[in-house]
Amino acid sequence: MLKNELKPGPLLAGVNSPEDIRKMDLPQLNMLADEVRDYILDVISVHPGHLGASLGVVELTIALHYVFNTPYDRLIWDVGHQAYPHKILTGRRDVFHTLRQYKGISGFPSRKESIYDAFGTGHASTSISAALGMATASQLKGEKDRNHIAVIGDGAMTGGMAIEGLNNAGASHANLLIILNDNGIAIDKNQGVIKDYLTGMLKGEPLTEQNLKTKIERINQRRKAIKNRANNVREVFLRNSNLFEAFNFSYFGPVDGNDLQQLVAVLKEIKKIDGPKLLHIITTKGKGFEQAEKEQTIFHAPGPFDRETGALLSKNPKDRVSYQEVYGKTLLELARKDNKVVAVTPAMPSGSALNYMMEEFPERVFDVGIAEQHAVTFSAGLASEGLIPFCTIYSTFLQRAYDQVIHDVALQNLPVIFGIDRAGLVGGDGATHHGVFDLAYLNGIPNMVVVAPMDEVELRNMMYTASDYRKGPFAIRYPRGYGFVGADAWHQEFQEVPVGKGRMLKDGRDIAIITLGQPGNFALEACRQLEGEGIQIALYDLRFLKPLDENLLNEIFQKFKYIITIEDGVIRNGMGSAVAALATLNSVNIELVNLGIPDYFVEQGSKDSLYKECGMDVEGIKAAVKKLIKNR
Amino acid sequence: MLKNELKPGPLLAGVNSPEDIRKMDLPQLNMLADEVRDYILDVISVHPGHLGASLGVVELTIALHYVFNTPYDRLIWDVGHQAYPHKILTGRRDVFHTLRQYKGISGFPSRKESIYDAFGTGHASTSISAALGMATASQLKGEKDRNHIAVIGDGAMTGGMAIEGLNNAGASHANLLIILNDNGIAIDKNQGVIKDYLTGMLKGEPLTEQNLKTKIERINQRRKAIKNRANNVREVFLRNSNLFEAFNFSYFGPVDGNDLQQLVAVLKEIKKIDGPKLLHIITTKGKGFEQAEKEQTIFHAPGPFDRETGALLSKNPKDRVSYQEVYGKTLLELARKDNKVVAVTPAMPSGSALNYMMEEFPERVFDVGIAEQHAVTFSAGLASEGLIPFCTIYSTFLQRAYDQVIHDVALQNLPVIFGIDRAGLVGGDGATHHGVFDLAYLNGIPNMVVVAPMDEVELRNMMYTASDYRKGPFAIRYPRGYGFVGADAWHQEFQEVPVGKGRMLKDGRDIAIITLGQPGNFALEACRQLEGEGIQIALYDLRFLKPLDENLLNEIFQKFKYIITIEDGVIRNGMGSAVAALATLNSVNIELVNLGIPDYFVEQGSKDSLYKECGMDVEGIKAAVKKLIKNR
Repeated sequence: MLKNELKPGPLLAGVNSPEDIRKMDLPQLNMLADEVRDYILDVISVHPGHLGASLGVVELTIALHYVFNTPYDRLIWDVGHQAYPHKILTGRRDVFHTLRQYKGISGFPSRKESIYDAFGTGHASTSISAALGMATASQLKGEKDRNHIAVIGDGAMTGGMAIEGLNNAGASHANLLIILNDNGIAIDKNQGVIKDYLTGMLKGEPLTEQNLKTKIERINQRRKAIKNRANNVREVFLRNSNLFEAFNFSYFGPVDGNDLQQLVAVLKEIKKIDGPKLLHIITTKGKGFEQAEKEQTIFHAPGPFDRETGALLSKNPKDRVSYQEVYGKTLLELARKDNKVVAVTPAMPSGSALNYMMEEFPERVFDVGIAEQHAVTFSAGLASEGLIPFCTIYSTFLQRAYDQVIHDVALQNLPVIFGIDRAGLVGGDGATHHGVFDLAYLNGIPNMVVVAPMDEVELRNMMYTASDYRKGPFAIRYPRGYGFVGADAWHQEFQEVPVGKGRMLKDGRDIAIITLGQPGNFALEACRQLEGEGIQIALYDLRFLKPLDENLLNEIFQKFKYIITIEDGVIRNGMGSAVAALATLNSVNIELVNLGIPDYFVEQGSKDSLYKECGMDVEGIKAAVKKLIKNR
Repeated sequence: MLKNELKPGPLLAGVNSPEDIRKMDLPQLNMLADEVRDYILDVISVHPGHLGASLGVVELTIALHYVFNTPYDRLIWDVGHQAYPHKILTGRRDVFHTLRQYKGISGFPSRKESIYDAFGTGHASTSISAALGMATASQLKGEKDRNHIAVIGDGAMTGGMAIEGLNNAGASHANLLIILNDNGIAIDKNQGVIKDYLTGMLKGEPLTEQNLKTKIERINQRRKAIKNRANNVREVFLRNSNLFEAFNFSYFGPVDGNDLQQLVAVLKEIKKIDGPKLLHIITTKGKGFEQAEKEQTIFHAPGPFDRETGALLSKNPKDRVSYQEVYGKTLLELARKDNKVVAVTPAMPSGSALNYMMEEFPERVFDVGIAEQHAVTFSAGLASEGLIPFCTIYSTFLQRAYDQVIHDVALQNLPVIFGIDRAGLVGGDGATHHGVFDLAYLNGIPNMVVVAPMDEVELRNMMYTASDYRKGPFAIRYPRGYGFVGADAWHQEFQEVPVGKGRMLKDGRDIAIITLGQPGNFALEACRQLEGEGIQIALYDLRFLKPLDENLLNEIFQKFKYIITIEDGVIRNGMGSAVAALATLNSVNIELVNLGIPDYFVEQGSKDSLYKECGMDVEGIKAAVKKLIKNR
C-alpha cells in the first residue's frame, strides 16, 4: 500500500506536537482518539508491528500529553510496545509507516529519535528506575515544577527491577507518577501472585471524577498522619489498604483507562499532589478492534492483517519451519523420553513455542513471569535435585540473568540447559532486542558449553546431546525465524553431537571459512557461487564456541593462509576473536578476517538488510573472500 | 594462635552432625548455643571472617537442624555470611579455623564442601528462587515429606530477584519455608520502604509459644476461605494483613529469633503446614558480644580483634592507602568542584568509601539498597538529565546489572561513570566474589570506555578524566585493598589521562610486557629483578581495554617478538585475548603468553596466594619471561 493511502483523519492531520492537543476540547479529544486508533490500524495492518498494547493506551496517551507539559515533563513508556500513539502524536505521524523498518523509525521509544522520548525502552521494568533518576535530578537542580511519569504494565511490574525501583522511590520525596497500565496480559497471560493481587484490587470501588475529591481527602489525611507522627511512620505503613500504599505511594484507582474524561479529570488532580504516587488504570489490550480484543496474544504483534475482518494475512511458508517450532516440538519429544526433562520460561511460552510441551505436560513447564533472574536460579534449583531443566530465554533477556548464570549455575557446575532463543540479529525489534552479545558474555564463564546450531536438525541434535550431557551448564543459542532445512526434512532421528567438536562442511584449497551457527548457510551459498568463479573454499562449521575445537582450528591454521570467520554476534569477544587469539598463541601466520556484528548498536530492519549492513550476507561474504585472496 | 588453643566447649565437641543435636534437650540446646557463640568468637577473633551475622543466628541454626531432617530437608542460607554456626554444626568444626584461607573452607555455603550446603550462596537474594526450584523438583518426584527452607535477611529481601521469587512461589503449592531473618541491617543500614515496612510489623503482637495455636487457627481459616471460594481467591487476597500474605504466604511472626525455646516450638508447628509459608524472626546482629552488637557495621567483618575487649587489632599500615579510600576522597574533591557530580551505591556506602562524600553532601549520595539493576538505570536517569553520576558497584555485583549497563546506559550512550570496586581477585571471599569477569563482559559492549588504573594516582586521574569526558559511559575498575603509591604520595594534582592511550613504563630490548591495572606493579618488580640477570624488559601499561590503543600495540608488535600480557581478570575475552586477536588481524608474527585468571573458578585465599596460583605474581611473571625467551 502506498503511503498516501494511509491518510490520518482531519484532527490527527493537524496534530504536529502535543501543543496542538492542548488546544482541543473534550469532544475533540475523543474524536482524536478514534482517529489515532484508526490510523494505527490502517498502518499496522500493512506495516506490521506491536498492535494490541498501543490500541489499549490511545486515551491514556492523549490524556497525558493534554494534562502534562511534555517534553518538559518527562514521560517514559516501560517496554515501549505501547508507544505508537505517543509517536504519532509527537511529530512522527508521517514517518509512522516506516516503523521497525531499515532506516525507518524504531518500534520503541528512542532518545535519538525524539525529544518526547525521555528515555529509551525495550526491555521490561526499567521505567520506574529511570523516572526516579530523572526526578531526583530535578530535585537537585531545583526544578520543582517538572513532572516525571512512568507508564508500566502489570506484566512489567512483576520484574524484580520494578520492585527495586518502588522500594527506593517510596522512600524518596521525588515528584514521580507511576501509571500502572493494568490490562491483565503481557504477551502471554501474566503469572504469579502480583497478577492475582491486581485483579483482586479491581473489585474495590473505582475512582471516578465524582468520588475523586473524597479519595484525595483520604490520601491527604494519611499523609498528614504520617507527617505528624514522624517517629511513627512505620505504624502508619501498616494501616495502608494495598500493596502500593505499603510502598508509601499515594494510590489512585482503579480508573477506566479507556475513558478520556475520567483520565483527564483524575490526572489534573493528581498533578497537584507532590511525592511518589501511583495511578492504577484498567485498559483493554487491543481496544477498539474486535479481533484484537478477543485474541490478545495473537494481536500483540499480528503481522499483516485484513483491516476489516482482522484475518491474518501472513502466510507461513509451507516449506519452512521456524527454529522456535523445532525447539518446542523437540522439547516435547525429549520430555516424552525422560520425565526428568522440564522447561522454564520467563513469560514467553508462546514466543518460545513451549506450548507444545505445556499442553501435554502442563506440570512440567514453568512460566515464572517476567523474571529472568528468578528463572535461571529456579532452574539451578531444579537441576540441583536431578531434573533436566531447559531454561528457555531470549538472548537479549538472558542479559538480565547474567549474574545468576555465573553465580548460581556455572560456579556450581549445575546441568542447566539454556535454550537461548532469538540469538543474533532479530530484525524489526532493533537495537534493544538483538541477541548479539551472548557469545561474548558466555565465552568468559568457566564450565559453560556454548553451542550454536547451523540449522534445525543441528538444533534438535544439540538439544538431544545437552539433555544427555549432565556434566554442567550447556547453552544452545539459536536464531529467530525460519530455518534452512525445511518443514519436511527437519524431523530426523536424534544424533549425539560430539561436545567440543566442529565439522567440515566442504573441502577446498584456496581459503577457509569458519562459521558458527546459521551464517554457515550464508557461507555455503557464497561457496557455491564462488566455485563458479573458480575459487575453492573449505567450509567449517565450528558448532561449539566453548569448548573451542583447538585441534580442528590448528589443522585449519596449518592448511590455510586465508581464513574468514562468520558469526551472528558481536565480533569483539566472539568466535572470530577466539580464533584470532588462538592463532597468535600458537604463533601461526595467517591472514584472518572476522565477519559479524561490528562494535556499534545495530538498529532495526529486516534481518536481510541488517546482515547486509554488517557485511555478513552472501554478497558480503563473497566480497570478503575476494578481497582477502586478491593478494595471493 | 595454634589450633589446639581453639577448643570447642564439651557439648559442641560432641556434635559431629545435626544427628547429635537432635538427641539433646532444651537446656542442652541452650548450652550448645553458648558454646557455638564462644567458638565462633574464639576462632574469628584470630582467623578473621564475617562475625556479626553468624552471631545473630546461632539459635536459629540449632533450632533448624533440631526440628528439620537435614540434609534430607534442604536448607539454604541467603548470602551465606551467617552460615558459620551451620558449618560448625555440620561436620566442619575442626576445620573451621581454615575459613576463608587458601585451600581451607569457604566463607560461604558450598555444595562442593558439604552435603548440608544444599545450594551455594554469596550474592544476595538468590535463596527463594533456588529453594522454590528444589521444592518444585520434590513435588514432581513425589517427595512430599521433604522440606525446603530459605533463610534470608531483611536486606536481601529488597533485591528484586527475591521479590520475583516470592511472586512465583506464592502462586505455587510448593513446600517452601522462608525464614525472614530481620536484624534491620545488611552491611550498612538498610534502605528503602521495605525496611520501614518490616520495622512497622514489629509493632504487632509477637508470635509466641502461647498464642501459636490461635494464630495457626487464623491461618487455617484463611486458607479454607481461599479454598472454598476457588473463584474468589482474589477477593481473599485483599483481606490479608500484611505484605507477605498479599504474596499468598502463610505468615508467622514476629518471633524472637534469639529465643531457642520459642523458635523450636514455632518451627515444629509450622513444619506441619503445607504450601508457601514465611516465618519472620527478629535477631540481633552481633548477638552476645557487646562490641559487635553496638558497632554492627564494623563487626560485620571486623578483622582480628581482642576476644575480651573487642578492640580491633588490624593495623592499617601507615604508609599505605586503599584504593577505596582514594576513590572516596577523590570523589569528594570532584563533588566539591562540580555540583553535578553525584554518587550511587547499592548498599555499600562504607565498603566503597562513599561516606566521605555522604558526610559533606548527603543529598548527592544515593544508597538505593541491595538493588544493582535499579542502581544502574537510576544512574542512567540521573545522567540523562545532565548530572555526573559515579555509579559505584563491586565488580562481582555489577554482573547483576549487566542488562542495564547494555540496554539503559551504553545503548543510549549516557555518560554514567562506573566505579567498579573490588575488581580482580578479592582474596578471602573467594569464588563467589572475585571480580574477574568485568573486563570480559564489558569489552563487547559498544560505546563503553573501560579503564584500569595501575595505582592510586592513576585512579584519581581516571576519575578526573571520566568526570570531564561526558561522551558516553566510562568504566573504571580498581582492586580491593591497598595501593602501591602509598599514603603520602597518592594525593597529587589531577591530570587528565588521554582516553584510549597506553603508556610505556620502561624501555627494554628483549621482551615486552603489557599490563592492565595493578599487575603493572608486579611486572615492574619482576623487571627490576630480571634486569639483574641481564634481561631487558620493555614494560607498557595499556591503561584502556577499550578503546584499545592499537597504535601502541602495533608499535610493540613491530619491535618485539616476545610479548607477555598480564591482567587481573579472566584471560578468556580479557585484555590478553584482545591483544592476541589484534596481532592475528594485523598478521604480525609474535610469540605471546597471556597471564591472568585461567578458565576455572578460583577459590578463596590471600590475594598473594591466588596471584601465585594463577602464575601472575612476581615469581610467576619472571618464570613466564624466562620460559618464553629461552628459545631465543
